[in-house]
Amino acid sequence: MNPLDPQALGQRAEAMVTDLGEISAEPGRRVRLFLTPEHRRAADLVANWMRDAGLSVAEDALGTVKGHYGEGRRLLIGSHIDTVIDAGKYDGPLGVVAGVLAAEHFAKAGRKLPFGIDVLAFGDEEGSRFPATLASSSACAGVFDSETLSLADARGVTLTEALKIYGKDAAGIPGAAYKPGEAAAYVEVHIEQGPVLEARNQPLGIVTGIVGQHRVRVTVTGEAGHAGTVPMGLRHDALAGAAEMALALESIAKEHLDDGMVGTVGRIEASPGAVNIIPGRVAFTIDLRSLTDGLRLTALKKFEMEAKRIAGTRGLFFSMETFHEIGTAHCAPALQDGLVAAVSGLGHAPVRLPSGAGHDAQVMTRLCPSAMLFVRCRGGVSHNPAEFASVADMGLAIATLIRFIETFDPSKLA
Amino acid sequence: MNPLDPQALGQRAEAMVTDLGEISAEPGRRVRLFLTPEHRRAADLVANWMRDAGLSVAEDALGTVKGHYGEGRRLLIGSHIDTVIDAGKYDGPLGVVAGVLAAEHFAKAGRKLPFGIDVLAFGDEEGSRFPATLASSSACAGVFDSETLSLADARGVTLTEALKIYGKDAAGIPGAAYKPGEAAAYVEVHIEQGPVLEARNQPLGIVTGIVGQHRVRVTVTGEAGHAGTVPMGLRHDALAGAAEMALALESIAKEHLDDGMVGTVGRIEASPGAVNIIPGRVAFTIDLRSLTDGLRLTALKKFEMEAKRIAGTRGLFFSMETFHEIGTAHCAPALQDGLVAAVSGLGHAPVRLPSGAGHDAQVMTRLCPSAMLFVRCRGGVSHNPAEFASVADMGLAIATLIRFIETFDPSKLA
Repeated sequence: MNPLDPQALGQRAEAMVTDLGEISAEPGRRVRLFLTPEHRRAADLVANWMRDAGLSVAEDALGTVKGHYGEGRRLLIGSHIDTVIDAGKYDGPLGVVAGVLAAEHFAKAGRKLPFGIDVLAFGDEEGSRFPATLASSSACAGVFDSETLSLADARGVTLTEALKIYGKDAAGIPGAAYKPGEAAAYVEVHIEQGPVLEARNQPLGIVTGIVGQHRVRVTVTGEAGHAGTVPMGLRHDALAGAAEMALALESIAKEHLDDGMVGTVGRIEASPGAVNIIPGRVAFTIDLRSLTDGLRLTALKKFEMEAKRIAGTRGLFFSMETFHEIGTAHCAPALQDGLVAAVSGLGHAPVRLPSGAGHDAQVMTRLCPSAMLFVRCRGGVSHNPAEFASVADMGLAIATLIRFIETFDPSKLA
Repeated sequence: MNPLDPQALGQRAEAMVTDLGEISAEPGRRVRLFLTPEHRRAADLVANWMRDAGLSVAEDALGTVKGHYGEGRRLLIGSHIDTVIDAGKYDGPLGVVAGVLAAEHFAKAGRKLPFGIDVLAFGDEEGSRFPATLASSSACAGVFDSETLSLADARGVTLTEALKIYGKDAAGIPGAAYKPGEAAAYVEVHIEQGPVLEARNQPLGIVTGIVGQHRVRVTVTGEAGHAGTVPMGLRHDALAGAAEMALALESIAKEHLDDGMVGTVGRIEASPGAVNIIPGRVAFTIDLRSLTDGLRLTALKKFEMEAKRIAGTRGLFFSMETFHEIGTAHCAPALQDGLVAAVSGLGHAPVRLPSGAGHDAQVMTRLCPSAMLFVRCRGGVSHNPAEFASVADMGLAIATLIRFIETFDPSKLA
């Protein structure tokens, strides 16, 4: 067995993340959506890496690429290869690359472990194509909601249709789930996507839990009319109402800064959408997250009441529909401790921190004990081409993962 | 000569408006944009009507269809055949149909008049395709701004390119202008698009002036970021800033209700536009109108100051750019009096009222004395498929126009 060389591992990770990052639907920016030709190319590249690493490769009904090594109950190591629109290159791919390189460390040496390893490359974590997220990990965890299949993308293509075009069959989704007891644990390496590690001047963080979140579609309906002839006092302007509601959400989230609550309106669409027509209908999305499930639910209720009040004052109709909800997921203490020991063993201070972002691990906690290792990223910037993690930090993360695997004992977990 | 039968004229108008209204780019809603295949079909239908009415037909470099009858200085009668998106069928076409039927009344009888008549069907009044309006009437009035040629539609096609595809040559635009003295007056029949005539229980109105307006493109730039990991206090959310600015515009317009000021945000676009990303950039449009040019300019300045203050508070960049501006256009008193006499002669009370909507007449006042006759429309609804004018009211409008022509004397105008 080779001794660990974090710098060399980091350089390999950077090269692999860069290669994967070249795959995009658009020349000027990085766009890699679920079940698209770019997903296919990315999945093929990952499968090649896995084969080169000495893993046996399979793909499940949602296109998740699985690289397997060894025997016995499985330690799952994964992340996602889809992106947001105009993405950076580390968010997701780093975790897949870390899994491949860590598994390779054991597979290439033919080293026997008292458990098997599955490296997983999920295809839908961001929810950038369909109005739902985490479909791939949900299928692996056996908690896939079949109603997701009828959701349509911006062009009206449903998930079922997209699967067919991708060469998959939705009927196979139940078969993608791990059987009870088959999965011993799930571990995910991911860039922090926040500013905490940078502020603490540490390369790695151990996640204590992943914040719960709500994603909600709001529709405000008023009355379209001529922008020149309907006096201000007689208007039922859906956009003006939506603007007030967006500001109400911001105020409510700001009331719970201590809990790390965040509320975002990321998409908005005004219809009919002409310069000289009062918008008759506005649809917008809400992304609301909080470390405390109860506070999140209370905040959402408060938003609903406030939005109804605004709609009432303006003579508008208001409706909201949750299309994604997930509770706060707590990381398994035993796995956290294993990661803490590995980070300490490499001479770094282990920082424990919560995750404000959703991750596949959030769903995987429903299958088996799960944990996450965060890697410092510059300025906390993510979901943006400026996203950056250093070779040194990535190498340390992979070395940590390898040390974690060396001491991992499935019999010590429930 | 036949005696006037308003009911029969109204029935013919309704049939013609309905036929024209069938021409759309989309099956479920009415969309007829400048220089599209639908514009071509509509122009051909209007040309056929004109020929059947005994007019000689020509088309200018911007596709305006011109039907001519008689000799001498011209009385121009026109309106437009383009639509907003998801439009009603009366806004624009009624004025063209009224012109054709009124001209036919004289042409079919071979009746000599001391002036010629040009019926004009303009192709760009709404500005639904390119970010500018009134291109067609501007060309006829000799005030076409050649910078308009480089403006692009939503697909990136410039006006110059669209003209080529339509079979026209931008070089011919100066030749579309009437020569000094050639046009004696311009008259336009149009639905009111507002609630005043209905409230007064009168079918027809004589327009005193058309409100000035500004159309402005606002861009708000902040910083895109992950919706889960950037705390509320560290955000530079372009959409939250834009929402505050939209509400500021609404407040400013409401301060001048007496002046009939109206302010509208009709389009808004958030980038990158994903549920889980803080918008880094928002673009929206402002449509601001007022009967008093000075008040409109003051209000726009006030909006700009307020928007800059909001941007400063939130750490955003703000810019605004006017892409359309037109001053209040006053209708010629002598022409107003002619229309008042004609309406009275038909036994109805002539209501004088301003127009909150922009019209081709607004530009035509720069060429020659102009006037407008408004037709009551149900609920004041316009720019909406529910738009409706009755057969009886349309018939009265055409009868009024015919009576107006009978007494029109170009020598009595400047």
